[in-house]
Amino acid sequence: MSKDKPSIPKGTRDFGPATVVKRNYIFSVIKRTFEKFGFLPLETPAMENLSVLTGKYGDEGDQLIFKVLNSGDFLSKISGEDLEAGYKPLTRKISEKALRYDLTVPFARYVVMNRNEITFPFKRYQIQPVWRADRPQRGRYREFYQCDADVVGTNSLLCEAEIILMIDEVLSTLGLDDFTIKFNHRGLLAGIAEAIGAKGREADLCVAIDKLDKIGKEAVNEELRQKGIEEDSLTKLRPILGLTGEIADLLPQLDTLLQNSAEGQRGMQDIRAMLSYLESFTVHKAQVQLDVTLARGLSYYTGCIFEVKVNNAQMGSISGGGRYDNLTGMFGLPGVSGVGFSFGVDRIFDVLEELNLFPEDSQTITQVLISNFDEASMLYSLPVLQALRQAGIAVELYPEAAKLKKQMAYADQKSIPYVLLVGSEEMESGLLNLRNMRTGVQDRLTVPQILERLQPNGSH
Amino acid sequence: MSKDKPSIPKGTRDFGPATVVKRNYIFSVIKRTFEKFGFLPLETPAMENLSVLTGKYGDEGDQLIFKVLNSGDFLSKISGEDLEAGYKPLTRKISEKALRYDLTVPFARYVVMNRNEITFPFKRYQIQPVWRADRPQRGRYREFYQCDADVVGTNSLLCEAEIILMIDEVLSTLGLDDFTIKFNHRGLLAGIAEAIGAKGREADLCVAIDKLDKIGKEAVNEELRQKGIEEDSLTKLRPILGLTGEIADLLPQLDTLLQNSAEGQRGMQDIRAMLSYLESFTVHKAQVQLDVTLARGLSYYTGCIFEVKVNNAQMGSISGGGRYDNLTGMFGLPGVSGVGFSFGVDRIFDVLEELNLFPEDSQTITQVLISNFDEASMLYSLPVLQALRQAGIAVELYPEAAKLKKQMAYADQKSIPYVLLVGSEEMESGLLNLRNMRTGVQDRLTVPQILERLQPNGSH
Repeated sequence: MSKDKPSIPKGTRDFGPATVVKRNYIFSVIKRTFEKFGFLPLETPAMENLSVLTGKYGDEGDQLIFKVLNSGDFLSKISGEDLEAGYKPLTRKISEKALRYDLTVPFARYVVMNRNEITFPFKRYQIQPVWRADRPQRGRYREFYQCDADVVGTNSLLCEAEIILMIDEVLSTLGLDDFTIKFNHRGLLAGIAEAIGAKGREADLCVAIDKLDKIGKEAVNEELRQKGIEEDSLTKLRPILGLTGEIADLLPQLDTLLQNSAEGQRGMQDIRAMLSYLESFTVHKAQVQLDVTLARGLSYYTGCIFEVKVNNAQMGSISGGGRYDNLTGMFGLPGVSGVGFSFGVDRIFDVLEELNLFPEDSQTITQVLISNFDEASMLYSLPVLQALRQAGIAVELYPEAAKLKKQMAYADQKSIPYVLLVGSEEMESGLLNLRNMRTGVQDRLTVPQILERLQPNGSH
Repeated sequence: MSKDKPSIPKGTRDFGPATVVKRNYIFSVIKRTFEKFGFLPLETPAMENLSVLTGKYGDEGDQLIFKVLNSGDFLSKISGEDLEAGYKPLTRKISEKALRYDLTVPFARYVVMNRNEITFPFKRYQIQPVWRADRPQRGRYREFYQCDADVVGTNSLLCEAEIILMIDEVLSTLGLDDFTIKFNHRGLLAGIAEAIGAKGREADLCVAIDKLDKIGKEAVNEELRQKGIEEDSLTKLRPILGLTGEIADLLPQLDTLLQNSAEGQRGMQDIRAMLSYLESFTVHKAQVQLDVTLARGLSYYTGCIFEVKVNNAQMGSISGGGRYDNLTGMFGLPGVSGVGFSFGVDRIFDVLEELNLFPEDSQTITQVLISNFDEASMLYSLPVLQALRQAGIAVELYPEAAKLKKQMAYADQKSIPYVLLVGSEEMESGLLNLRNMRTGVQDRLTVPQILERLQPNGSH
């Protein structure tokens, strides 16, 4: 057995109780919102067959997939030639399974495998960890949770409108009040390519424009130039990338710009339909903004795309998504349109910390610690312990006799709001000493009075 | 891209919505109970350093650990010699990480790494999946959840008593009413070894006795004989393994049997202390039984051990645990005593299915489907949709116009209890048609009336 100081793999994290409780608060708000909108939970295995994942995330993505070594003698069927062929071909021969890289491909795989049992439209959400062999850095981990909601099997733009409503509801409920939901449409990007005389080049356009925030206009131009976009097109593109303002002002300008592009007009139609649905709803806090420079790198999007930015915090996008018309096509089931989005929980966590938005009482689990001074007070306290638990109160008895100071420190450390002191005087009188740890106030109360004070729905 | 029909690795499972909802019901009962008893949640990464896991589960266990291939060119530092040394030594050179095999070793690793921040006694629970490369078979999976609760840093036998209370509360709350919590003590097993003249042989004794249920008395005897336990000892052992009955009757017999064994007397003392605490509590449904043949294979137990059997279902043990005195010793931190136990969620799930104990309303998420017959009814319904959601009701609008039959089938498939029909007549009158899908009864109601009918705390 190793006696070395143990450690965890780089890029992974332990979540201690205080952090789990805060994370669960975020998950519960997301989950409740997804369910209020009719989404049902799905869970897929951590391991997928490597063949299911390979080729879905580009060459770079393939390198970042964690592969699982075949169990048993993985070398038994390996020849000298296999070993000389290099690590990439060898990987496929010694590892058949891999850790999931996102929740989208497993979802597509699930839909294809269960297409005969699923009633469409199928609305599912999925909150599970994913693994990527990225170089770890601040805010980027090798294991992290994704929270996805997708609808497949309908073209209705109501789904897009509801994505905006769900993002608005989750972030408002979490206490955020200054955030922007940006949207765009792949058809608009295709139309813009056409309008600047670079028809069919929207893929290169998207990849470059996607970096606008990070590398700036000039570098984007340079990248497009190197990809063979002509100078004339770049000149035409410049004012388009500067189009900002109210949606109502932008739409007519885009109508003119895209008048000769079928793709562009499809985009405009979708956007207008989505906005018309949205008008019937109250949006709580979100600023909804049409941003023609929003591109999102992923190649499978075909319709509306979304991204969310918190304006008063130092943080990139905390949510994003879009419509894809052929996600299940990768598994041989074409023609299933879907739209989905995802919350980045780690980033939301950091934002809530930065803005001090975690509610105090979302962090309390144990309500009461009963003190333990000796065997007599312990035995006296056991029925009290049970009475409180039967009333639904989370309570523990310090498991052994110890000094008051030690027990108070324990309660403090666990953020337990009340300590019930049971000493000889209290046992004699039947009036137990309930100490409010925040205020320091102590009250002498009977057990029924304590129950009334502490019960989840009682008066505090 | 592969166009083959996709599949999932053998021994793993997808959990569709209906199953996730039922599983979450079990998790929530377990979680609520753990928290009521003062346990706080911990989460550790799916991947651990292989060196942390190796050597903790025996040779057989080491073989069943899923190893993760190093990312990048894992062959770059591998020599011809390494390749010839065989797959076992090679494994350590091409894989530094592995999937966690249980929650106990990661917990011990966490305690050691964070010993300066943790306030002891430390009560944590952990509900996460684990992975084992076992041969898949009915009821045995390669990915499954464990639900562990452990207290470390105290010797108090109150912890043992509370384990019995938690098992009782979880299983009673889930509706089980005929189950037995068996307990024993490693000291008793050591004392029995001593009493039959096989002092120090309790490890062999445990391994053999552990199989009593599966292989029967004769085979156990044979195994012990082959391990060199003498015939005289086996003769003395026979009546001891037959000791059954009420705890009150067993204790004096064991006192006599173990009077010359210090280990045996330690066991008796612990058991009496645990029982004395237990007497102050109400046990709801559990039959609590002292079983001197209960051994539990894991070598790290040193004190009380537990196992739970549902008597009216075809299923092995659904929960088990015990006290260990040196779990963190494997990482160089000796002297931390702990006690813990675990629920087998897959087995509990199967038992609840077999006994038909999943409550009907634990399986409903979406409460209402609003019908969609045309663009006019859709636009009319949007504010209704929002009003219901603002009242906290989970509701969805069928996203596109479709035939009533199709929409009813959709509601049926998702087990949605109400469908709100919005046709031209309803729009004119403002009285919407609320159909109870179970009874088939339809009521014409205004939106405020619908809210009152459906609100989570309203009258049904």
